[in-house]
Amino acid sequence: MALIVHKYGGTSMGSTERIRNVARRVAKWARAGHQMVVVPSAMSGETNRLLGLAKELSPAKPGDAYSRELDALAATGEQASSALLAIALQAEGMPSVSYAGWQVAIKTDSSHTKARIESIDDAKVRADLDAGKVVIITGFQGVDEGGNVTTLGRGGSDTSAVAIAAALKAHECLIYTDVDGVYTTDPRVVPEARRLLTVSFEEMLEMASLGSKVLQIRSVEFAGKYKVPLRVLSSFTDWDIDINVEAKSGTLISFEEDENMEQAIVSGIAFNRDEAKISVLGVPDTPGIAYQILGAVADANIEVDVIIQNIGKEGKTDFSFTVHRNDYAKAVELLKAQVLPKLGADEITGDAKICKVSIVGIGMRSHVGIASKMFRVLSEEGINIQMISTSEIKTSVVIDEKYMELAVRALHKAFDLDQPAG
Amino acid sequence: MALIVHKYGGTSMGSTERIRNVARRVAKWARAGHQMVVVPSAMSGETNRLLGLAKELSPAKPGDAYSRELDALAATGEQASSALLAIALQAEGMPSVSYAGWQVAIKTDSSHTKARIESIDDAKVRADLDAGKVVIITGFQGVDEGGNVTTLGRGGSDTSAVAIAAALKAHECLIYTDVDGVYTTDPRVVPEARRLLTVSFEEMLEMASLGSKVLQIRSVEFAGKYKVPLRVLSSFTDWDIDINVEAKSGTLISFEEDENMEQAIVSGIAFNRDEAKISVLGVPDTPGIAYQILGAVADANIEVDVIIQNIGKEGKTDFSFTVHRNDYAKAVELLKAQVLPKLGADEITGDAKICKVSIVGIGMRSHVGIASKMFRVLSEEGINIQMISTSEIKTSVVIDEKYMELAVRALHKAFDLDQPAG
Repeated sequence: MALIVHKYGGTSMGSTERIRNVARRVAKWARAGHQMVVVPSAMSGETNRLLGLAKELSPAKPGDAYSRELDALAATGEQASSALLAIALQAEGMPSVSYAGWQVAIKTDSSHTKARIESIDDAKVRADLDAGKVVIITGFQGVDEGGNVTTLGRGGSDTSAVAIAAALKAHECLIYTDVDGVYTTDPRVVPEARRLLTVSFEEMLEMASLGSKVLQIRSVEFAGKYKVPLRVLSSFTDWDIDINVEAKSGTLISFEEDENMEQAIVSGIAFNRDEAKISVLGVPDTPGIAYQILGAVADANIEVDVIIQNIGKEGKTDFSFTVHRNDYAKAVELLKAQVLPKLGADEITGDAKICKVSIVGIGMRSHVGIASKMFRVLSEEGINIQMISTSEIKTSVVIDEKYMELAVRALHKAFDLDQPAG
Repeated sequence: MALIVHKYGGTSMGSTERIRNVARRVAKWARAGHQMVVVPSAMSGETNRLLGLAKELSPAKPGDAYSRELDALAATGEQASSALLAIALQAEGMPSVSYAGWQVAIKTDSSHTKARIESIDDAKVRADLDAGKVVIITGFQGVDEGGNVTTLGRGGSDTSAVAIAAALKAHECLIYTDVDGVYTTDPRVVPEARRLLTVSFEEMLEMASLGSKVLQIRSVEFAGKYKVPLRVLSSFTDWDIDINVEAKSGTLISFEEDENMEQAIVSGIAFNRDEAKISVLGVPDTPGIAYQILGAVADANIEVDVIIQNIGKEGKTDFSFTVHRNDYAKAVELLKAQVLPKLGADEITGDAKICKVSIVGIGMRSHVGIASKMFRVLSEEGINIQMISTSEIKTSVVIDEKYMELAVRALHKAFDLDQPAG
């Protein structure tokens, strides 16, 4: 008997028939003797429907008061699905109770629409578990010090589930989703992509941030911080699959590096075509230049990903970085208006038609030549590399977006990811 | 400048376009210098949609745990519409904030799905009003001592609005709905029906309970208890109608009997075809008989309306009452199984094809002969009266339902309700 947290995504909760299957699956786990806590997302489409209504009413630029109301609005989706799941469990003969974020309470800061969890009070939940109830806790939301409803931002239900698992010291947090695990890369691009049985927390972090959208990155960070064992698995297997089989399915995100870890040097290929690159050419090579450029960008709330500054020549240097494609025009405009005149740079150039491809693997730490093998493979395919960025467990390149699939397939094959792990 | 509470029904909140018009109307009142509190219902259809999902998941007989989840589910409808209205007000340039029942807090007892308000904490609301904000408070819901979300039952938003108006000692509570006031009778039955400019609280109570479904009866009781001036008016007039005209439109439910009160003896004709009559014939005329019959009915959660017991003859009496038509079969079955054998009554008879027609008027108190005039009018139309029940301000008769329209029209004319009040 263990305390287990299940998290179900919007697709898994997408209809009463699916909610009933979730209830049956959870009841199966409870009847096997586990203490069960379930964190459901809103029914698929519901959050978009609600935010769509808000958008119809106010195209205005968000402010604090507006964000507060958006949170109050969006939080209702998970409250409804949690109550529905409790009702479905009761219909299966399983005692259950649902709690909204404020009822637990899940305390967050006051950053509406992107709040961070500060603490979770587990007293109520433990009492209910001890009384034999399945406890359902709304994902995606909490309450701030002032008693205002907050939300954690899109995908925040994953983070809620992990935070709750951490607070309750759960044995494992199972994230049920519409894919059956973490793959070496996107199977839509590489049909030979293989499901990983285990992946390290650090690799998962890189995979998530680089665009393998299986888990929300903040939930992985949280899991890493509190060492919550996470498992990603499919909610579309039959609900009455043998529980021992189910408990070992999907991909385990592990924190025990030396044990059960696959020994491949590279674990996966991540890619992302949501970015655009911007270069500030011929800026004076003086201290503080990075801050002067990126400070202005950050002030405009634009997130920057890859940042590269080359060694300067003749007192001048080139500075490049990538931003989300949606922020591209805004960032270029901003730099031309504010940074170009002030810094006396030569030129701002950019390109939105790029993509980022990364190889990720904990094995890279202790293996030399992995990056150079990557560059050789790309060169053999005639792909020009525009930017390079490396860390201990990943190497990323920015290339023309038209080569993305070609690059991913070539790298997947070159690093033997289509072969079962040794 | 005054503190005004507006309440908007589901139809008035039925689309983003309508919510925008509500926001404009409220903003107009706020700009005229009033402190504004708004209580919106869920968007029309939303509560039914949510409860429909619950029904799909659990046809089971409600219990406490189930009712608790139903409340958590249903309460989300008002939370969403409140946040949307706050957003719409902000888009109109009007500072606003929305609160769920638990945030205010509106404390209720723990009778899920039909909770009663116990107290309202007005501190937050007053602070926001003083800061120049429009305060939106979800209708229909509250929170119990254990921190569970409760709902007040169907139509509970009216009650919320009145309770909030009472707690804030509001100048007036305006109930915006899809009709433009309280009429002398239903205009669909009598085209000459006239809107009442004012109606007394007691008359309104009789009109509401007798089937003029303009206001939820509990809200009228609440208004009476706390002397909250209530106005029923239409939300489908143009939002930018002159505020002085709007403030005098609709029907005022007044507590100041001698002032501005229309002097008609009879204020309106109410009717109701949702009832059925049941008679227990030949019961022993002994003390406790009423309790033995109606106790069994009440235990089965069946509400009883008109109750009549005639003087007994030869130690036996007949006992008649009306129930909602939906409960008719259940009540008859129950009486036959439990009451007939125990009491040794002769027979249980009943009729579902009846209706109740009532004349209501505060003027009846001081005018003799009103009831007899009613009986004469019905007799002139050849309508047989099956049951009679009277109180200080109303006289009700039960007749064959096929005569309902005829009776209502004849009484409406006979009591000069188609003529402007003198």
